[in-house]
Amino acid sequence: MTLLVTGGRVLRPDLTVERADVRVDDDGRIDAVGALERRETDQTLDASGGIVLPGLVNAHGHAAMTLLRGYADDKPLDAWLQEDVWPIEGVLTPEDVGAGARLAAVEMIRSGTTAFADMYFHVGTVAEAVADAGLRARLGHGVVTVGKDDEAARADFAESLAVAEEYDGAADGRVTTAVMPHAPHTVDTDLLAEFVPKAHEAGVPLHFHFNETAEYVEAIDEEAGVRPGAYADDLGMLADDTWVAHGVHLDDAEIDLLAERDVAVVHCPASNMKLASGMAPVQRLRDAGVTVALGTDGAASNNDLDLFDEARDAAMLGKLAVDDASAVPAEAAVEMATRGGAEALGLPVGRIEAGAPADLAVVDFDAPHLTPEHDPVSHLAYAARGSDVRHTVCDGRVLMRDREVLTLDADAVKREAAERARDAVDRAS
Amino acid sequence: MTLLVTGGRVLRPDLTVERADVRVDDDGRIDAVGALERRETDQTLDASGGIVLPGLVNAHGHAAMTLLRGYADDKPLDAWLQEDVWPIEGVLTPEDVGAGARLAAVEMIRSGTTAFADMYFHVGTVAEAVADAGLRARLGHGVVTVGKDDEAARADFAESLAVAEEYDGAADGRVTTAVMPHAPHTVDTDLLAEFVPKAHEAGVPLHFHFNETAEYVEAIDEEAGVRPGAYADDLGMLADDTWVAHGVHLDDAEIDLLAERDVAVVHCPASNMKLASGMAPVQRLRDAGVTVALGTDGAASNNDLDLFDEARDAAMLGKLAVDDASAVPAEAAVEMATRGGAEALGLPVGRIEAGAPADLAVVDFDAPHLTPEHDPVSHLAYAARGSDVRHTVCDGRVLMRDREVLTLDADAVKREAAERARDAVDRAS
Ligand SMILES: [Zn+2]
Ligand SMILES: [Zn+2]
Repeated sequence: MTLLVTGGRVLRPDLTVERADVRVDDDGRIDAVGALERRETDQTLDASGGIVLPGLVNAHGHAAMTLLRGYADDKPLDAWLQEDVWPIEGVLTPEDVGAGARLAAVEMIRSGTTAFADMYFHVGTVAEAVADAGLRARLGHGVVTVGKDDEAARADFAESLAVAEEYDGAADGRVTTAVMPHAPHTVDTDLLAEFVPKAHEAGVPLHFHFNETAEYVEAIDEEAGVRPGAYADDLGMLADDTWVAHGVHLDDAEIDLLAERDVAVVHCPASNMKLASGMAPVQRLRDAGVTVALGTDGAASNNDLDLFDEARDAAMLGKLAVDDASAVPAEAAVEMATRGGAEALGLPVGRIEAGAPADLAVVDFDAPHLTPEHDPVSHLAYAARGSDVRHTVCDGRVLMRDREVLTLDADAVKREAAERARDAVDRAS
Repeated sequence: MTLLVTGGRVLRPDLTVERADVRVDDDGRIDAVGALERRETDQTLDASGGIVLPGLVNAHGHAAMTLLRGYADDKPLDAWLQEDVWPIEGVLTPEDVGAGARLAAVEMIRSGTTAFADMYFHVGTVAEAVADAGLRARLGHGVVTVGKDDEAARADFAESLAVAEEYDGAADGRVTTAVMPHAPHTVDTDLLAEFVPKAHEAGVPLHFHFNETAEYVEAIDEEAGVRPGAYADDLGMLADDTWVAHGVHLDDAEIDLLAERDVAVVHCPASNMKLASGMAPVQRLRDAGVTVALGTDGAASNNDLDLFDEARDAAMLGKLAVDDASAVPAEAAVEMATRGGAEALGLPVGRIEAGAPADLAVVDFDAPHLTPEHDPVSHLAYAARGSDVRHTVCDGRVLMRDREVLTLDADAVKREAAERARDAVDRAS
């Protein structure tokens, strides 16, 4: 199906905004951008009064945690995980995880996100949700080996590799995968030493939580006598296709190391604030040449999946972190939400240009909170919200038109997720 | 006109949520809350699937700065004021300020805010905008005397008092006023000593920026050799009807002093982040018994007027400030956005109960990002947005029904504000 996105303005890769149409070919790729000659296409999308952006990329999260949105707030990370999150996650069935992932998909489509990374379990049902929703995703099975016996620990890591191999290329190629050890300190060193090379051999990237809290840094220091950067590097975890989540507590040597190894960092400002984890050195990472992306983390520590919020939070928190109102300007926030995420996940998206997959979001600019328009990029970073997204397109397919999600039945998805969430809480208690 | 808000749930003053209707009398007051017997009312509002909240209170801002939204971002406070904001403000006509205030009114109505405080100039046109919009507001003329000769400085302060006396009770009593010296360090000590007692005599409260940045604190220390708390107290500025904005850099003695004097503090988390001003000690203020409200500050340092954003930012930043994820929980954020603001401004709103003015917002909870519903108060703090507000009522009058603003022509307001903003930029440059 060919598609013409017509009448709007387009955010170009250099972050200028210009009047342009976007034409999409049969194969889901952008065929032309500009003042296009009228030519018959199968479908059109009206972008008048709006700006066509690259679809946003949510580069770190746990989609099915939508089931736990608002279940237990205002608690420190460790207590929250041990007392609230893990007991419920322990009873989630594959169908529960699928329902949570579908709810996340509806929410992401409605807020202009077209690609996401997901670390969870029962990955097969997450892949199905991605296929049904029409989104693009890089999925993985999260490995935690602490507290498990050797056999169970090994099986968990083996599953992460098997899952990565099984689902790579699913959903007509829109699903790619990664091996996802939860964090350096929650996975056994021996198993990391064994499986990380296997992931590399299989050509599968790695993704893990990295230096999220001061305690996580200390845990490695106590265990190995070095910073997590050196520890992970020693184990071969910092490869050029690796992307890590958080990077809140980094020293200069670790920032340089991430830059040198071409490892991308996913900044999750809302989660870092809500769990009081700290302020990531976003401006310093960018100055050092590290690719920085944005992530919502799970909905339970956010509590939504609106990447426009993350962009705003990133610009704001990035200033506070270095006591400098010129740090992490609007352009940086918009870039991190689009191209930064695409580069972190190794996906050929994040730019509106001929040849790229047609992953797009059309933001309606005809709104009081986007008036006047001195600078559209400022509005995208600071004032636009997911609710301003009018249409969402992924891989050339229209996922939302005039705020109606076309690929999933949003009401049925909400109902099923609400029921399964309630039921899971009952079973866990 | 009588009104019945029917079929929804209500956020009660104790922050529980229960199934209830709200009936509003002819005089704009809430007449009954509960499972009401069917009785004929002139109008009804359908709140099914929604939660009826007290209208939110935006306790510090500069409404007409909507004209400068996105005009100059990512600059430190002083450079931003001197290079960008003040040159434009210098050319704004009363009509420009009115247009900016109407744009702010549309935006606030659409995001569930029913009362706001405003420090600006050309206050007469702001009062007109409030009257037309049907909102409630406490307005004042901001006084800055630094850089002015003695006569002009005195005239500016005299105007603040005259304006406060002139507009008090405007818009059928929905407009009240205050005398608003910009900040302790931007107004001459002699003039404060002269006019503060006059404000007290006239029964008009004071509102000013207080300890917003470390530099503001230093400025008083250099001038007077004391902290701004002691300085302002000495001048009689800390009366029990005073409310101050920001309070970012407070020492323990100042926190105790604010508590003792019953001075309320308006926390403006987005502005404090965007201008890299710092993190206000919100949990400590609340622990000390200080009333804390929320404010957006001007749209140019936010960049919107959505108080749901402020509630979320307050809960999140409040945790980061004290490295404790249990600080400033969801309930605190919701309370600050409602009752805290009402108390700061001395308005009889902020609670849904019989006898109170009917200032209400109905939030639609049937949304993917508000699913599932383990805890509605968590959703109000962390996941709901202004765009989820379905109806807005102030003083018993419906200002927005099913997202259509009824009191102002939103399209005309947007158009006029956009034109005037463009024109002001041209004139200033
Ligand atoms: Zn995570
Ligand atoms: Zn202010």
